[in-house]
Amino acid sequence: MLIVLSGPSGVGKGTVRQAMLAGNYRDFQYSVSMTTRQKRPGEVDGVDYYFRTKEEFEHEIATGGMLEYAQYVGNYYGTPLKYVNQTLDRGKDVLLEIEVKGAMQVREKCPDGVFIFLTPPDLSALRSRLAGRGTEDEATIDSRIKKAATEIAMMENYDYAVVNDKVNLAVRRIERIIESEHLRVPRVIDRYKGMLAKADAVN
Amino acid sequence: MLIVLSGPSGVGKGTVRQAMLAGNYRDFQYSVSMTTRQKRPGEVDGVDYYFRTKEEFEHEIATGGMLEYAQYVGNYYGTPLKYVNQTLDRGKDVLLEIEVKGAMQVREKCPDGVFIFLTPPDLSALRSRLAGRGTEDEATIDSRIKKAATEIAMMENYDYAVVNDKVNLAVRRIERIIESEHLRVPRVIDRYKGMLAKADAVN
Repeated sequence: MLIVLSGPSGVGKGTVRQAMLAGNYRDFQYSVSMTTRQKRPGEVDGVDYYFRTKEEFEHEIATGGMLEYAQYVGNYYGTPLKYVNQTLDRGKDVLLEIEVKGAMQVREKCPDGVFIFLTPPDLSALRSRLAGRGTEDEATIDSRIKKAATEIAMMENYDYAVVNDKVNLAVRRIERIIESEHLRVPRVIDRYKGMLAKADAVN
Repeated sequence: MLIVLSGPSGVGKGTVRQAMLAGNYRDFQYSVSMTTRQKRPGEVDGVDYYFRTKEEFEHEIATGGMLEYAQYVGNYYGTPLKYVNQTLDRGKDVLLEIEVKGAMQVREKCPDGVFIFLTPPDLSALRSRLAGRGTEDEATIDSRIKKAATEIAMMENYDYAVVNDKVNLAVRRIERIIESEHLRVPRVIDRYKGMLAKADAVN
């Protein structure tokens, strides 16, 4: 099963992903992204990212090696297709933590993936915060509502909305989503049918 | 949110429901069924069932008071519509524990309910048990496979398949399904949009 964790920039996708990798529930494989940006101190190639040159990355794109990719501030970021396919073939769940733009590319290619939209707590607290306002000028409120509207519009392309109010709570919600999705009839019915066909053949 | 727990007879729906009602997770209301069968020793009207006469039950049917109903061994069993609607209107989850036939009636009327099919552990253990067979004659195996085929066919009309291998495990799976379903985008998007519309109007 392919699990796509995405959401607006600044929502804390990376922090939630790291907490998932450090947590007890580890019944999934994380797909390391590829980038052309400079390695920062402490980052490890193949752990934080696959660090590649622009030419290497563009070669991957040209040869169909990327599941999704996008450019941000002059650098490429993307998901190598090979690791995802190999891991899914082994029957393991794969977790992607990617930008909204990339998530929509994956949605087209893998419609039966589980798409989780991480939403900022601001969004759910919007009403109450605005009710108790007075400290913020109209322009600030205006821009905040505009931003919220954009975020809600993005949410519509996802299966689940998880509020990132506290990292450990967001992680627990995601883990439960993964566990429940594994019980969805369209995901299990073929296994039951296969079992039955085999039993019938044996008989 | 309407939660429908169903499955083949003898799978242990009642036991799982009782364990849910006795458990810690109680963020739902159980809809007591109505029946015309005799009250058994220890059963309480309004707790185990609403015990009604045949005439009373048929009056409910005639006046559109039943969400679903069916006859078994000469008795009526069904779900009164009023309690379900009142509880949903209060914003609470409602749990129904009903027969497969009734569940399909509810599916037609409430397509956005969560339909959980409780499956016997035999079904998932079928292959391995048949592999290690030798103790069972062909007729037994035949009938077992036929029964499994019927059960799988029923499963296709549900959202989730939960194996009732151990009651506490089945209960935990169902609780996680309920929690995850509450995070589904189609269930939350209107709330977010409403919040936004209100914020915009205030502004």
